[in-house]
Amino acid sequence: MLDDADSAITRDGKALILAYDHGLEHGPVDFEPVPETTDPGVVFDLATHDAVTALAVGKGVAEAHYPSYEDDVTLLAKLNGTSNLWMGEPDSAVNWSVDYAHDLGADAIGFTYYGGSNNEVEMAEEFRDAQEAARHRDMGVVMWSYPRGQGLKNDRDPKTIAYATRLGLELGADIAKVKYPGSADAMEWACQSAGKCKVVMSGGSKASDRDFLETVESAMRAGASGLAVGRNIFQRENPEAMLDGLEKVIFEGTTAEEALDAMPGAESEPAAASDD
Amino acid sequence: MLDDADSAITRDGKALILAYDHGLEHGPVDFEPVPETTDPGVVFDLATHDAVTALAVGKGVAEAHYPSYEDDVTLLAKLNGTSNLWMGEPDSAVNWSVDYAHDLGADAIGFTYYGGSNNEVEMAEEFRDAQEAARHRDMGVVMWSYPRGQGLKNDRDPKTIAYATRLGLELGADIAKVKYPGSADAMEWACQSAGKCKVVMSGGSKASDRDFLETVESAMRAGASGLAVGRNIFQRENPEAMLDGLEKVIFEGTTAEEALDAMPGAESEPAAASDD
Amino acid sequence: MLDDADSAITRDGKALILAYDHGLEHGPVDFEPVPETTDPGVVFDLATHDAVTALAVGKGVAEAHYPSYEDDVTLLAKLNGTSNLWMGEPDSAVNWSVDYAHDLGADAIGFTYYGGSNNEVEMAEEFRDAQEAARHRDMGVVMWSYPRGQGLKNDRDPKTIAYATRLGLELGADIAKVKYPGSADAMEWACQSAGKCKVVMSGGSKASDRDFLETVESAMRAGASGLAVGRNIFQRENPEAMLDGLEKVIFEGTTAEEALDAMPGAESEPAAASDD
Amino acid sequence: MLDDADSAITRDGKALILAYDHGLEHGPVDFEPVPETTDPGVVFDLATHDAVTALAVGKGVAEAHYPSYEDDVTLLAKLNGTSNLWMGEPDSAVNWSVDYAHDLGADAIGFTYYGGSNNEVEMAEEFRDAQEAARHRDMGVVMWSYPRGQGLKNDRDPKTIAYATRLGLELGADIAKVKYPGSADAMEWACQSAGKCKVVMSGGSKASDRDFLETVESAMRAGASGLAVGRNIFQRENPEAMLDGLEKVIFEGTTAEEALDAMPGAESEPAAASDD
Amino acid sequence: MLDDADSAITRDGKALILAYDHGLEHGPVDFEPVPETTDPGVVFDLATHDAVTALAVGKGVAEAHYPSYEDDVTLLAKLNGTSNLWMGEPDSAVNWSVDYAHDLGADAIGFTYYGGSNNEVEMAEEFRDAQEAARHRDMGVVMWSYPRGQGLKNDRDPKTIAYATRLGLELGADIAKVKYPGSADAMEWACQSAGKCKVVMSGGSKASDRDFLETVESAMRAGASGLAVGRNIFQRENPEAMLDGLEKVIFEGTTAEEALDAMPGAESEPAAASDD
Repeated sequence: MLDDADSAITRDGKALILAYDHGLEHGPVDFEPVPETTDPGVVFDLATHDAVTALAVGKGVAEAHYPSYEDDVTLLAKLNGTSNLWMGEPDSAVNWSVDYAHDLGADAIGFTYYGGSNNEVEMAEEFRDAQEAARHRDMGVVMWSYPRGQGLKNDRDPKTIAYATRLGLELGADIAKVKYPGSADAMEWACQSAGKCKVVMSGGSKASDRDFLETVESAMRAGASGLAVGRNIFQRENPEAMLDGLEKVIFEGTTAEEALDAMPGAESEPAAASDD
Repeated sequence: MLDDADSAITRDGKALILAYDHGLEHGPVDFEPVPETTDPGVVFDLATHDAVTALAVGKGVAEAHYPSYEDDVTLLAKLNGTSNLWMGEPDSAVNWSVDYAHDLGADAIGFTYYGGSNNEVEMAEEFRDAQEAARHRDMGVVMWSYPRGQGLKNDRDPKTIAYATRLGLELGADIAKVKYPGSADAMEWACQSAGKCKVVMSGGSKASDRDFLETVESAMRAGASGLAVGRNIFQRENPEAMLDGLEKVIFEGTTAEEALDAMPGAESEPAAASDD
Repeated sequence: MLDDADSAITRDGKALILAYDHGLEHGPVDFEPVPETTDPGVVFDLATHDAVTALAVGKGVAEAHYPSYEDDVTLLAKLNGTSNLWMGEPDSAVNWSVDYAHDLGADAIGFTYYGGSNNEVEMAEEFRDAQEAARHRDMGVVMWSYPRGQGLKNDRDPKTIAYATRLGLELGADIAKVKYPGSADAMEWACQSAGKCKVVMSGGSKASDRDFLETVESAMRAGASGLAVGRNIFQRENPEAMLDGLEKVIFEGTTAEEALDAMPGAESEPAAASDD
Repeated sequence: MLDDADSAITRDGKALILAYDHGLEHGPVDFEPVPETTDPGVVFDLATHDAVTALAVGKGVAEAHYPSYEDDVTLLAKLNGTSNLWMGEPDSAVNWSVDYAHDLGADAIGFTYYGGSNNEVEMAEEFRDAQEAARHRDMGVVMWSYPRGQGLKNDRDPKTIAYATRLGLELGADIAKVKYPGSADAMEWACQSAGKCKVVMSGGSKASDRDFLETVESAMRAGASGLAVGRNIFQRENPEAMLDGLEKVIFEGTTAEEALDAMPGAESEPAAASDD
Repeated sequence: MLDDADSAITRDGKALILAYDHGLEHGPVDFEPVPETTDPGVVFDLATHDAVTALAVGKGVAEAHYPSYEDDVTLLAKLNGTSNLWMGEPDSAVNWSVDYAHDLGADAIGFTYYGGSNNEVEMAEEFRDAQEAARHRDMGVVMWSYPRGQGLKNDRDPKTIAYATRLGLELGADIAKVKYPGSADAMEWACQSAGKCKVVMSGGSKASDRDFLETVESAMRAGASGLAVGRNIFQRENPEAMLDGLEKVIFEGTTAEEALDAMPGAESEPAAASDD
């Protein structure tokens, strides 16, 4: 971790990463709740919100839209990813070279790492190449650290999440993105394990306004540096209101309650269990 | 997608790609209905028709014939492909380097991508290299996006085709070539999923004049940018008449009916189910 | 296929390639019928016969002998090959780089391609690299096109041989070497399938003078451009006489009968079924 | 082994390597006995102790902390390593290029080698590249030589450990790190087998002060050049005291008894059997 | 084979290669009969004997000792090799780059080739790279040609050994090292099969003075160019005497009897069947 290598994608050390790689990872079904989000332009517009410190997208989406937003959006190049049409051992194709991402204007790279997969060794070596190329270009490095594979029964186990953030530190990420491990204590352990590597919580599938903000508040109090969020923004009817709320909790340190008070018409229904 | 990266192989944003890679993919049996089409020269002649915006062929065929046609035909280098003598998990050999294709005069590359295959990750990484090399050379990129593999029961399912076009967008193609998903609604979804990536319908196996043109009309109205066609041209007795008809439907926006009226002696018999 | 890329190894568009890679592919047992042919020098001497347009050997044999014959023999570098000690899925090691072959004075490369093998994709990509390196060096390209593998019941089926020659054309060979498909009609189909790619018949295991020359005559009349021959030359007591005969049939267009008349003491016994 | 290639990480030919790659190899559970050791800074502070000749850490930990310690700590870049989330055949990902390690200030590299694993051939070739790159940069080379795999019933067998040190010599390490083979005689054989390659004992899991120092004394008398230690330092309440003791045994050649006498409040309870 | 490429490791066309890669291939157990041979320096001293034309060792042993012997010993860099801790399909790791071997002063390379192994294709391609790099550096090339694998019942069968030497010729070795095939006739066939590639007999496991020298005499009379020997030298009480004897048989062309007469106290007990 180079000094301030992540500064381009954080503000005051905090990050709100808007992630929009669902078209590759899950397919267009993820856009059905709010069909206009099929158009990447809609999400690029959201990414101009003050709260968003970076937008994570794949190469093709960046090629098609980033040129129109380069003054207003910070690009986080999500380097690897694979469709869910394929159902083999967890793996992820590297779809984008770091040099090309840099040429397109990216300030940081994102990389999925499936610790525990039979492909872990290969993924680690691909991460090495990407991480070192990013260092060479002064780009930040974010690891989507998602332990997965036959040896893992519960991918939100506190020990597993603490290991996941540690892998971010050990392998050279500036920021590790992990699932919320279910409790503030577990999140605190995960943040301590990461050392100087920052930790951001993965937004996961859509939750009610209250549930979601309370989880984010809990993560922030436990030492997290922010959030990487997709469906909990773009599957909402009023995504800007949620970005306003997240800005309060993440950057101003308010409670979820205070944030909700400032969000007229906040939703409260829960959501299904799938995850980013 | 770079601005106008595909302009060399489109006209007014529309494309009619004549594809002639059947000798590699299916073998010479595909030429039996019209034996003279065994000679690539016959198909290069067809490609000089005004309606054709690009001819997609493999390296050896291009080496042998393109030098005589470079003023009259736009070359789309079909980079990968494999014989059907081999019956393993869907895969495709990269038979042509982008640099060599560029040296031969190609304006764009074509690449088959089998999402859902056990070889998806490897194919994605081969596509990455080809796509970035094409960008470096200012060449257009067309993805033959054909989900395939054990997890896929129906490769024309609307959700699958919408995912297929989205993969074109996400991975950085200018144009995604997909099978017709059976209805105008499904095609519309597929075109929306592709965002700024254009969609062309795959011609498939030979159909009657009417059936074929009506499907093309339906695809165009649903938002497609054109057609990539092989057997429905070169297996016809009068391929020029069909090219005339396609020119009307694709570039002039007529109905299939109007196009048929202008095609004396149009056929109407149906054809078998296999596909390009 | 570059214009005249094969001209160094053809004469008037016809080729008689003397092949001597049996020491690698079959081992020294192939030299037992005429033990002095164990010495490559004996075969290099034969290759100085006017009828021979190129000699195909492996790297080590070329290193050891070609320096003494470079004024009198045209070298075709057989790039890949593997011993028959190994009995796995059809494959062939690339034993020679194109650059090194060029440095040794080779005018063309030879490459075995097992369409239908589980290794087809890998072999195609190795062929791509070799073919493009050969183009860069202005060397001719000959494909030993031998469909093989579990999906293939009969490797001399007319459809298979026509596909084999087509693969030569599609992938960028100047000349495809295939087994004789059993009839003049099948050979004609194979030659038409190859388009501008020339077709040479594989000599196969030793046959009687008459049988062999009649097959060559038949192939030539069907459109073949010549012959690649090994055992039917070097396993004969009088190989020069057979080269004289082949010169008549291949380059002068005589019948086998005319050629035999000019060969005193021609043999007529048949031979076993194994093949080059 | 270049002359004095290891001199940067030895003193008078002796080495005390503090190893801290447990966060990657075992996960944060290894820090639970002394939670503050979760913070790499605590271990970097320990590494400033006079007795420590090098600190072995992974890339990310080095990036985060080494810049603050480069005047006081000698960096040994532990190039490969893998989480224990994965439970396949012994293997280790190369997470760090030698050039990048050199740029960060590393004086030597560390490399795990699992002789006997199905991945032995691949690991040997990765070691070759790393070792030769290190020679090019005048960096020392330490092999974590840990025979492992289905053919090995006892990874502390005297013959196995003697083979392990010999592999260090044969493949070009300056120092081989091996488990203690259980007796002074076995350790002596291992040291003789290594020839000019130095041998350091692996510290293993936590033992009592007495047991640990006596084993180190035994190893030193058998010809070892020192120790590579992790948990037996950082899992202690008073790690500095143990470093004082090790300094006596390793660099001053005292007995364990003499060293213990100088360590007030030395522990004596035994520990479990797992190993570094 | 370049003219005289092997001259640095032969004298009058004859070779006596002292091989000392047993520490890698077999482990330190091979040094137990004469424990001081654990120290490579002892074997380097033997290699200064006039009879020895080259010493074959691995990279680490060469790094550690060759700088002190470069005026008195010719270095043959044994590039590949693997421990017998691993028991999978025959394979061998390439532990040494040719460039680095050249920088250390090696005049030739040695390469193990397991024809018949499932890894034959990969080994052949590794050999290709090494062989061509050696040619570029004007270094000699010795192939340890050891057919092995499930298809081979008897690795000393005359046909197998003749194939083994032929592979040396075909793939570009200057010298092929093979096991003695059991009879003078079989050895003669093997030498003829090799053409201009020289053949050296592998010393194998320790035999009595008489048996060993008689086998060497037989091989020389059959056309061999010498011997590559390890255990039959360094496992003897008086290795210099045996080197004196071998010098007579190999370079002076004496009988084994004459050589024995000049060796006071020659042994005559037989030895076990294992092999180099």
